[in-house]
Formats: sequence, C-alpha cells, structure tokens
Amino acid sequence: MPDPTAYIRDGAEIYRQSFATIRREADLSAFSADEEGVAVRIIHACGMVEITEALAFTTGAVAAGRAALAAGKPILCDAKMVAYGVTRARLPAQNQVLCLLDDPQVPGLAAQAGTTRSAAAVDLWLPHLDGAVVAIGNAPTALFHLLDRIAAGAPRPAVILGMPVGFIGAAESKEALLASGLPALVVRGRRGGSAMAAAAVNALASTAE
Amino acid sequence: MPDPTAYIRDGAEIYRQSFATIRREADLSAFSADEEGVAVRIIHACGMVEITEALAFTTGAVAAGRAALAAGKPILCDAKMVAYGVTRARLPAQNQVLCLLDDPQVPGLAAQAGTTRSAAAVDLWLPHLDGAVVAIGNAPTALFHLLDRIAAGAPRPAVILGMPVGFIGAAESKEALLASGLPALVVRGRRGGSAMAAAAVNALASTAE
Repeated sequence: MPDPTAYIRDGAEIYRQSFATIRREADLSAFSADEEGVAVRIIHACGMVEITEALAFTTGAVAAGRAALAAGKPILCDAKMVAYGVTRARLPAQNQVLCLLDDPQVPGLAAQAGTTRSAAAVDLWLPHLDGAVVAIGNAPTALFHLLDRIAAGAPRPAVILGMPVGFIGAAESKEALLASGLPALVVRGRRGGSAMAAAAVNALASTAE
Repeated sequence: MPDPTAYIRDGAEIYRQSFATIRREADLSAFSADEEGVAVRIIHACGMVEITEALAFTTGAVAAGRAALAAGKPILCDAKMVAYGVTRARLPAQNQVLCLLDDPQVPGLAAQAGTTRSAAAVDLWLPHLDGAVVAIGNAPTALFHLLDRIAAGAPRPAVILGMPVGFIGAAESKEALLASGLPALVVRGRRGGSAMAAAAVNALASTAE
C-alpha cells in the first residue's frame, strides 16, 4: 500500500501540481485565454479533464462576469452548497453571496406557483438581479424559472453560470439558457453541480491559481 | 428551442423520474441491495451512471453507517459544502453535522504540523470520532491525516466515506483507505467531491427516494 506518511502536505504545492497536471492533460484549445482560466478551475473541481467537451461560453461571458464582480454586484446561488463553495477571500469587492432558499416566503411562493422551492426562491432574487452573477448548480427548475422571468421583463444579470446537474430537465434547461441569447457559461448535458458552479464563480472572481 | 414553460415543476415527480432513469440506465449488478441505494443517490448527485465503475464498498460498510446514524452518532465533514449538502430532515436522530474547518485553533495546528487546514481540522474530530460517520469530499490531506491518526491509536469511526476529488493525492488517499481495513465507501480515482459525499450520507440516513 502507499505510505500514508509520504503524501504532499503543502497546500500551495498541491494547487501548483494540480493545475500543472490539468494544463498538461486537458485539451484547452477551444477556449480563449480568459475562458481557459475558468475551464481549468472547473476541471479542478470535478477531477475530469474531459469535462471540457461539455463546456460552452457565450462570447464575452467571462469578461462580463469579471466586470460585474469588480463592480461589487452580488452572486445569486440556487443552493447553499454553491454559496459555501465560493471562496470569500477571492472576491474583488466583498460581494454579497446570496442563497434565498431558506427565506420564510419560499414555501408559500412555491405552493402558490406550483413549483419547487428552488424555483420559487428565484422570485426573491429580482431586486438583486440587475447586472448580478447568477450561479445555478443544482436545480433545473430554478434555471427554467429564471429564464421565464427574464423573458417576461425581469432585470438581466451580467452572466448566468448554468450548471444544474441531473437526469430530468438539467440538459434541457441549459440548452434553453444557451438559446436565450443571455450571457452564459454552461456545462452541457447531465453533468454539473454545486462544486463546478462555485469553481466558476471563484474563477471569475480572481485569475490567481 | 425547448419551450421553457413546459418543464416539470413537481419536485416529487422530478425525483421519481430521476431515480427511474438511473435504475434503467445504470449497471447496478455489482452491488448488494443496501449498497445499491447508496450507488443510486451518488449517481443522482453527479449525473453520471458510469460512476458505478469507480464505487467500492467494504463488506458491511452501509449497514455500519446506517446503524451509527440510527444510534445518534455525529457526521464529521472535511468541507462546509459537504455539511450543507446533508439533508437534515433525512437524519434519523437529529445527528450533529460537524465541519470544524473554521475553528480558531485550525490555522495554528496547520502551521505547527506543516499541513493543510483541512488535515489540521481532523485533529479536532478526535473527541467525536468513535463510531462516527466521516464524510470526506474535498481534501486528500484530510483523509491521509485521519488514516495516520487511526493507525496511531485514534478512535475508529463506524464508516469513512472517502470521496476527495482531484489530481494530486486524491486517488492515492482512497487506495490507502481501502488498504487500511477500515469500513469504507469510496469513489476511486480522481472523481468525487462534496456532492457525492453528501449524497452518500443522505443515502445512509434514510432509504427514502
């Protein structure tokens, strides 16, 4: 068996070797320089260099996200796991990281609209939505509901990180996002999740590796 | 484009269809009945039916985890994302969910031991460790450090969910866990993460789908 005392303990060195391994193994040729930095962090979060085949960026989405964070705009998350995955020390303007799923209004809104709590919580985003960074790592219903609201005139976020995971609605919600014309960063298909969504936020927040 | 108004909004129906899809597509033949329930929830968390090829259970690990939770033992998590992914309503005994990464002793312990904060936080688990459920979804150093401590005489947890993700040390730490003879549930290789670790806890906590 491996000698458990022989592992690397230095966090900075682990990061350095991790990112070097990713850059050696991953095919990053499809990405612009700023997209590449986001792709590398998403790979780091999931341990799969082949996730690049599922990544889609709309033109200028990374720059829009970076500018929004630099301007102090909030980060709106569909799940607490996403919110807790955002590294506060990387944020350029002590940006608010909001997940409103536990708001006491949510169960009533969900029952009234006949939808999930994750989707109902999106309605509480509206006062914060203009120019914000939206990070969806869990619920396709939250992404569908957001697209409905924006189509009906709600404020437009700076960028939507569309990464819900799963078997029912996830892939479809992300294709709907890409078809909407909104600035977006997407993990197509069934894969995605809170860790990838948080990693994308962390990549937009700072170029440091 | 897909009609964004046509998606399924009923949370219970989304779960039902999700688990039906997983059971239709995944090869679950390698698993015992109680392992299968855990495998299905891990697949649900990552969107990949093929993750089954990386799953390894030691004999009796699922039963040991269920018994520990039923007996009110705590869940020790290496990352806040894991802790926030545990569904409190599924826990059989209002079990404590502990992540001690933010404890003020951690930076000092890490500096003193020349290791990561995640590994140093493991030392604060020791009073809670006997018979506990350990869920590691992020840091290989936390898993290596735990194995070192147990080899040196620390109390044995009921089961270790070993699912750190990444490129440096993750695969090796999980092989060391399997070689240790401790009760374990592992996602071998580079894949893993907080969502899979939390899903495994949620599966041990209740058989409800």
